[in-house]
Amino acid sequence: MKVYLDYAATTPVNMEVYFAMEPYFKAEFGNPSSIHSWGQATRKAVDESRNSIVNFLNCDTSEIIFTGSGSESDNLAIKGLVYDLGVSKPHIIASQIEHHAVLKTCEELEESGVEVTHIKPNKEGLVEVEKIKKAIKNNTVLISIMYVNNEIGTIQPIREIGKMVEKENRNRNQKIYFHTDAVQAVEYLPMNVDFLHVDLLTIAGHKIGAPKGIGLLYAKKNTPMAPMIYGGAQERGLRAGTENVPYIAGMAKAIQIIQKSKFKNQNDNSKLKNLRNYFVDQIVKNIPDVTLNGSKENLVPHIANFYFKNIEGESIVLALDLEGIGCSTGSACTSQSLEPSHVIMAIYNDHFRAAGSVRFSISKLTTKKEIDYAILKIKKVVERLRKISPYN
Amino acid sequence: MKVYLDYAATTPVNMEVYFAMEPYFKAEFGNPSSIHSWGQATRKAVDESRNSIVNFLNCDTSEIIFTGSGSESDNLAIKGLVYDLGVSKPHIIASQIEHHAVLKTCEELEESGVEVTHIKPNKEGLVEVEKIKKAIKNNTVLISIMYVNNEIGTIQPIREIGKMVEKENRNRNQKIYFHTDAVQAVEYLPMNVDFLHVDLLTIAGHKIGAPKGIGLLYAKKNTPMAPMIYGGAQERGLRAGTENVPYIAGMAKAIQIIQKSKFKNQNDNSKLKNLRNYFVDQIVKNIPDVTLNGSKENLVPHIANFYFKNIEGESIVLALDLEGIGCSTGSACTSQSLEPSHVIMAIYNDHFRAAGSVRFSISKLTTKKEIDYAILKIKKVVERLRKISPYN
Repeated sequence: MKVYLDYAATTPVNMEVYFAMEPYFKAEFGNPSSIHSWGQATRKAVDESRNSIVNFLNCDTSEIIFTGSGSESDNLAIKGLVYDLGVSKPHIIASQIEHHAVLKTCEELEESGVEVTHIKPNKEGLVEVEKIKKAIKNNTVLISIMYVNNEIGTIQPIREIGKMVEKENRNRNQKIYFHTDAVQAVEYLPMNVDFLHVDLLTIAGHKIGAPKGIGLLYAKKNTPMAPMIYGGAQERGLRAGTENVPYIAGMAKAIQIIQKSKFKNQNDNSKLKNLRNYFVDQIVKNIPDVTLNGSKENLVPHIANFYFKNIEGESIVLALDLEGIGCSTGSACTSQSLEPSHVIMAIYNDHFRAAGSVRFSISKLTTKKEIDYAILKIKKVVERLRKISPYN
Repeated sequence: MKVYLDYAATTPVNMEVYFAMEPYFKAEFGNPSSIHSWGQATRKAVDESRNSIVNFLNCDTSEIIFTGSGSESDNLAIKGLVYDLGVSKPHIIASQIEHHAVLKTCEELEESGVEVTHIKPNKEGLVEVEKIKKAIKNNTVLISIMYVNNEIGTIQPIREIGKMVEKENRNRNQKIYFHTDAVQAVEYLPMNVDFLHVDLLTIAGHKIGAPKGIGLLYAKKNTPMAPMIYGGAQERGLRAGTENVPYIAGMAKAIQIIQKSKFKNQNDNSKLKNLRNYFVDQIVKNIPDVTLNGSKENLVPHIANFYFKNIEGESIVLALDLEGIGCSTGSACTSQSLEPSHVIMAIYNDHFRAAGSVRFSISKLTTKKEIDYAILKIKKVVERLRKISPYN
């Protein structure tokens, strides 16, 4: 039996998404920028895809920029804003537990004189609105806080932050823009940008049943934005390069599927939440010295991250892989680095905990049978590894 | 009958390429950065794809960076080099007829103090080695000349430029790096980077039977290179974002197909050239006041760009589309702008010529029957449009 419990790292392509892409690999291949009928057909596909997303985000078509990944969207949101604003010494606020696409972009900007404040999360993994508010300076131009932490699943108070920022902006010369990396939130949480009070929002296709290689950036009208890729006029001049028509159609389909399921099956998420809670309860009950990282409160339904005392997380991942179970020590993007999780470190400041934590993430495809199988195997693997652990 | 004669704008996905991608949409979906078996399977696909390309370019795997488009590769080559070099006032040389992905990137850099010299092509559309040599300054860090012009098809003397640059570098403190946008050359011309003496080389997937949304940048070992997208360690830290596994496999397959055909069917290109020459001869013979832009010498086998006196190129494109024939006024990337072709303007400095030029581009899929049909229709359309032309 093979049980994939790493849906936060990437998801399989949904077959409906695949069928939405197929025509653009086979029949319709024109360049959307060509004015002839071949081009018109794919231009129509790109336009219709964009149109089909506006309801989900409650935005305008001109506010959607298709990119090549969530990381590219994060980079574009931050650098695009800072470069186009042209403020001489701008200040950015981000949490310590952002995805590396945000943190490394901020680091790069720091080298060219941008000031960055990193907000420490509390013990539940929450980035508190008050702490962000206190960090605001006269030269603050951007706040970037992820919607859901990709490693431990904590839901951040995006709406509250957005409302706070909006209030602050009433009495400021320099407007503060608010960006959220919503990559892990799309299927489970409100995505209405007005409701969230965000100016910039990142989505990645491969986390929601579309393929790897497509991302989306929502950028509110009048938000300053400089391109990272110059050349043709694609994406309103904000991203040169021939449009990835099949993936754009696929991304639109993935979002349509989520939109339908969100409104028609409100209880899908609670089913998922129940399954995840059952998993957490069983793990904590059946295995000694295991703690859930973060808190069961404010937890997205598909993620559970555990600290297994006295074992290396990587050993657990590899041992479970041999048992047919796929999970991870944290973000896939950083899994090949040897550094301990910056997220666990920021919350607990504990190297042992950072080294001994493992993320399991499920999806609507996950069954109770798979979870029961996984629980058995995790118990077995943890017992065995503890026996040979030098810490014991 | 529908006849697509716009292969320089984009190509259909080759069915072999499609079959190479399919498993990564259906069976193998792991994140290549995940350490479990799902991730290992796609990591292997990415590695094998990269390995399969090294012979074609005669380079090392570490010298291949997969990107999201040819435009992104051009941007990365130029900005990645300039940013990482960190020279205080660097100088770049490019021709006036480069793709906009090069020209607009240079423009952007000019705003931040980079000096750019644009070389004017001669009357055949050739960028002369001597002119480039004369433009070199002490602070020159980069020369960017396209391998084949995408609008008129002129083959530029890349190898000669590369050798000249190499010679210059022997007596300089500041090394000059040499980049070529080879997007229109891949199927038809030598791509051995040592033979060409290039440091940086751009390829776009959708011009060679792979899908839209994948590009490749060859960057020679020790060429300075800063990422444009920060975050994870993908592409040796030079392009963060989960790898587009299906398209990478597709790109590799497209290149393998070209590599085989180049060596096994040397006469494929001459067949194509003969068909194109037949087309050019028939058009020039049968339609009055038509001139080939550029020269039949140094012309890539798949492109022919004509100046039809006293008609708007766009009218021809639209009228031919109604007759089932797809062609273009120039680059698809700029087709929706109202500016006249910068390529025709640079060569002929003639607004009428720039407005009255149309590009036809064929491929190995093009048949003599299609060409004969197109000739008839072009003749008919040109006659009709001339009758109603205000210029006549």
